[in-house]
Amino acid sequence: MTSAGILGLGIGRLAEAIRKREISAVAAAEASLAALERWQPHLNAVARPRREAALAAAERIDAAIARGEPVGPLAGVPMAHKDMFYRAGELSECGAKLRRGHVPATTSTALACLDAAGAVQVAWLNMAEFAFNPTGHNDHTGHVRNPWNPAHITGGSSSGSGAAVAARATLAALGSDTGGSIRLPAAICGITGLKPTWGLVSRHGAMPLSASLDTVGPLAVSAHDVALVTQAIAGADPLDPDCAARPAPDFLATIEGGARGLVIGVARGFLWEGVHEEVRVILEDALAAWRAAGATVVEVEAPGLAEIRTLVGTIILAESAALHAAQLRDHADDYTQAVRTRLETGLAIPAATYLDALRARKPLTEAFCRTVFSRCDALFAPVLLDPVPTIAESDAGAPTGARWQATIPRNTRLFNYLGLPALSLPSGFTRNGLPAGHQIVGRPFDEPTLFRLGHAFQNVTDWHLRAPAPPA
Amino acid sequence: MTSAGILGLGIGRLAEAIRKREISAVAAAEASLAALERWQPHLNAVARPRREAALAAAERIDAAIARGEPVGPLAGVPMAHKDMFYRAGELSECGAKLRRGHVPATTSTALACLDAAGAVQVAWLNMAEFAFNPTGHNDHTGHVRNPWNPAHITGGSSSGSGAAVAARATLAALGSDTGGSIRLPAAICGITGLKPTWGLVSRHGAMPLSASLDTVGPLAVSAHDVALVTQAIAGADPLDPDCAARPAPDFLATIEGGARGLVIGVARGFLWEGVHEEVRVILEDALAAWRAAGATVVEVEAPGLAEIRTLVGTIILAESAALHAAQLRDHADDYTQAVRTRLETGLAIPAATYLDALRARKPLTEAFCRTVFSRCDALFAPVLLDPVPTIAESDAGAPTGARWQATIPRNTRLFNYLGLPALSLPSGFTRNGLPAGHQIVGRPFDEPTLFRLGHAFQNVTDWHLRAPAPPA
Repeated sequence: MTSAGILGLGIGRLAEAIRKREISAVAAAEASLAALERWQPHLNAVARPRREAALAAAERIDAAIARGEPVGPLAGVPMAHKDMFYRAGELSECGAKLRRGHVPATTSTALACLDAAGAVQVAWLNMAEFAFNPTGHNDHTGHVRNPWNPAHITGGSSSGSGAAVAARATLAALGSDTGGSIRLPAAICGITGLKPTWGLVSRHGAMPLSASLDTVGPLAVSAHDVALVTQAIAGADPLDPDCAARPAPDFLATIEGGARGLVIGVARGFLWEGVHEEVRVILEDALAAWRAAGATVVEVEAPGLAEIRTLVGTIILAESAALHAAQLRDHADDYTQAVRTRLETGLAIPAATYLDALRARKPLTEAFCRTVFSRCDALFAPVLLDPVPTIAESDAGAPTGARWQATIPRNTRLFNYLGLPALSLPSGFTRNGLPAGHQIVGRPFDEPTLFRLGHAFQNVTDWHLRAPAPPA
Repeated sequence: MTSAGILGLGIGRLAEAIRKREISAVAAAEASLAALERWQPHLNAVARPRREAALAAAERIDAAIARGEPVGPLAGVPMAHKDMFYRAGELSECGAKLRRGHVPATTSTALACLDAAGAVQVAWLNMAEFAFNPTGHNDHTGHVRNPWNPAHITGGSSSGSGAAVAARATLAALGSDTGGSIRLPAAICGITGLKPTWGLVSRHGAMPLSASLDTVGPLAVSAHDVALVTQAIAGADPLDPDCAARPAPDFLATIEGGARGLVIGVARGFLWEGVHEEVRVILEDALAAWRAAGATVVEVEAPGLAEIRTLVGTIILAESAALHAAQLRDHADDYTQAVRTRLETGLAIPAATYLDALRARKPLTEAFCRTVFSRCDALFAPVLLDPVPTIAESDAGAPTGARWQATIPRNTRLFNYLGLPALSLPSGFTRNGLPAGHQIVGRPFDEPTLFRLGHAFQNVTDWHLRAPAPPA
C-alpha cells in the first residue's frame, strides 16, 4: 500500500490492518515520518522528528504481533504530539525560547496512556509559545502554516497538531485547549478535535497554562478517530487531582447510534454576533446537514455568555501570569512581545477579581446547563466567525493583529469557563479555499453523545474527508 | 442534681444520665440557659439565647426517651454555637453590623448533624466581626471577656464559644478555625478545641472567610468531649465540595489506647521563637506530662514555617477580600476599622501572588509531613507564646494592639495553611492567673491519634478540669 494509502485508512482500519499483519507498524511509522518530512518546508509543523524511538517502538509491536501476543487497540498507529507533553528524558520545548533544551523528568499521563494502547509517536509538533496564542504565530520557532494555503494561519495554540493531521501526515495528534487551542486548529485546518470536559483527561505532565481551564484532547480526521484516541487517554489519574475519579465510559459503544432522537440547539444571540456572511451560509448548510442526519434542530437561549467572555479572560490572564511571574521577572526579553504583554496584564489583576471570576463559575454553569440542556442534547455554535485570515494580517504586530487575536478565540473560550465538552467539526470552505467549522457543546462528561452526533454528522457530510493537495 | 453538677458531668456521662432518665433534657437545657444568663453580664458570651426552641427540642427528647424510642448519642446535651452557623429561618449575625437582622434560608450541615445526634442548641454565641480577628474584640457587639478574668481577652474569633464552655455554662460549642479561631479561645480560656483536617467537617452553611483555610470544629472541656462532638459532625457532605468523600472513622474506638508507643515531636526553632519565660516553663512541664503519660518525646525539625507564615497571610487576606469586595465598596463604614483595613489590604494582593501562595501549599505540606511525621506521631507546639493579654492592651486601637493582633495567631495559622488537624490542650496558668495551652498537630485525617493522645494527656493532668469561679 502507498504511504498516502496507509495514512488515509483511519485509525480503526489501520490498527486492524496492522494487527492482521497486512501492514507493518514499521511501514506505518515510516509513512508518517516521510509525509511529515515532505510537508515540513511548506508547513513547519514538526518541532523534532522522533525517528529512532518510533521505529524501535514499531518494531516491538510488529514482533509482538508476529508472536501472537496481545497488543493495544491503537497498536502501530503513528501519531505526533504538541511539543508540551512531557516524556521523561526527551526534549520538551513548548514553542518557547525559554524552554530550549528543557528535558523533563516525568512522562505525561496522556502519552503514557497512548504508549500503553500501542500508538507510535513519530514526532513532536510545533505550537504557539507556551500555548498562549490562538493563531499559530510563533516568532521563536517560525509560524506553522495551513496545508490548505501556507499563507494562512493554522489556528493555535495546537498549530502543528492541526497542520500535521490535516495534511494527512499523521493520524492523530494530542493538543491542549485552554481557550480554544484544539478546536481552533481543528476548525481552521478542516479536521475534527475534542476539547473534553474539564477533568475527563489527566493533565499530569502536560505544560500548564491556566489550571482552571486547561484540558488535553486529540485532533484527528474524523469524530470516530477522535473517539478512539479519547478512549485511550480518558479516566481518573491520581497524579492530576483535578481529574475526575470516574472511569471513562465506552465511547465506541454508542457512536453508531445516529442523530435521530437527539436535539441540536442553536443560540443565535451572542454566539452569532458579527458572523461573516460566507460563514453564515456554511453554518446554515451545516444545520441542514444535521437535519438530514436525523437530528431535531431547535432554537435555544444560552444565558450569561457576555459576562463569561470577561470572566474567562480574567482567569486565563491571572493564572498564566502566576505561573510565569518568576521567569518573567528574570527573563522578560526571552518572551515574544505578544505573550509578554499578556502576562504583564495578568500580573496586574487583583486576587479578589480573580476569585470573583472563579466563584461565578458554578452558578453560571448551572444556569447555562439548566437553560440549554433542558431544551437540547448539544449546542451548535460557530467556531470562527470569519474566513480564516492570513498569517500576515493576523500577526500581533500588524494593524489588524490585535483584533484577530481577540476575535478568533471569542466563541471557544466560553466553554472552557463552563468546563463543558465541545467537539469541533469541519463544515465547509469559504471562498478563499480555507476550511470553516462549527462546534457542538455537550453536557458535562457527555462525550458519548458528542461522538455519536459527530459521527452521524460525518455520515452525511464529507468535509472531514477532504484533504489538501500534497506538496509537489 | 444542681445546675453546676449537671453541666460538670461531661458530655458522655450527661448523655447517659439523660438516656437513663436520671436527668431530663429539659433540666439540662434549663441549667445551661441559666448559667449563660448568670455569666452574661461578666462575659458577654451570648449573642441570643434560644430558650423556646431549646426547651421544645429538649421536651421532644425527653418524650422520646420516655416512650423507649432510640435517640442520638448526644441526646439532650445542651450546646451553644458561634453566631455564624446558619439555621434556616433564624437570625445569624456573624458578629457584624452588616449582618444585623440577617436570616439565612439554609441550615449548616454541622448544626443539622448535631440536631440529628440529639444535641440541644440553647444559644448563639458572640464572635469576632465576620470571624476576622484573633482576640475576641468586637466593637459592634461588645468584646467577649475571659471567665478567668474579665479584663482579659478570650481569644478569637470563636470568643463566645471559648468563654461559654470555659465558664461551664454549656458543654460544647461549635467554632470555626481559619487561622486559629478555635485553638486560640480554647488555649486562652483553658479548654480543649479541635481544628480538624481541612476537609473532615463540612463547612456548608457556615459563614465563609477564606475557603482554602476555613475549618469547622468543636470546643469542649476535654479531648474526650471534643471527640464525641467531632464524631457527630465529621464526614462527607455533597453540599461542601471540599469535604472529603471518606466516611468519618470511629474516633472513640481508639481513644483509650494511651500514649505509650506514640511519639511526640518538639520542633524548637520557629515555633518557640520569642516564647515568654513563664510560658516556656509551662510547656516544659507539659512535655514532662507527656512523658509521664507514656509518650516518647523527641526533638524534630519542622521545615518551611517562616515561608508559610507569609503565604497563609496572603491567602486569608486575598480570599476574605474577594468575599467582601462588593459589600466593602458600598458599606465600608459599617465595618470596624480593623477589619476594614485588613480587607482593603487584601484587595491590593495580585492574583499571581495569591496563586503562588496556593501553589506552594502542596510541596510545602509534603515536605513538612515527610520531615515531621517520619519522626513522630504528633508535633507539639505552643499556641500563644505570651501570657494572655488584657482587652485594653491588645485592642487594635492601642499602641501595642497591632503587635498582639499579629503575634497571637502566629503559631496557629501555619497549620491552616498545611491543612493538618491540631488539638489545643490546656496546660497550666501563667502568673496573671490566665490559662496557657499547647497544640498537638497530626497527620492529615489522623484525628484518631490526636484524640487518643489528648485523652492520655488529660488522664495525667487536670488543667482541663479547672474551672473559673462562678460569678457572685
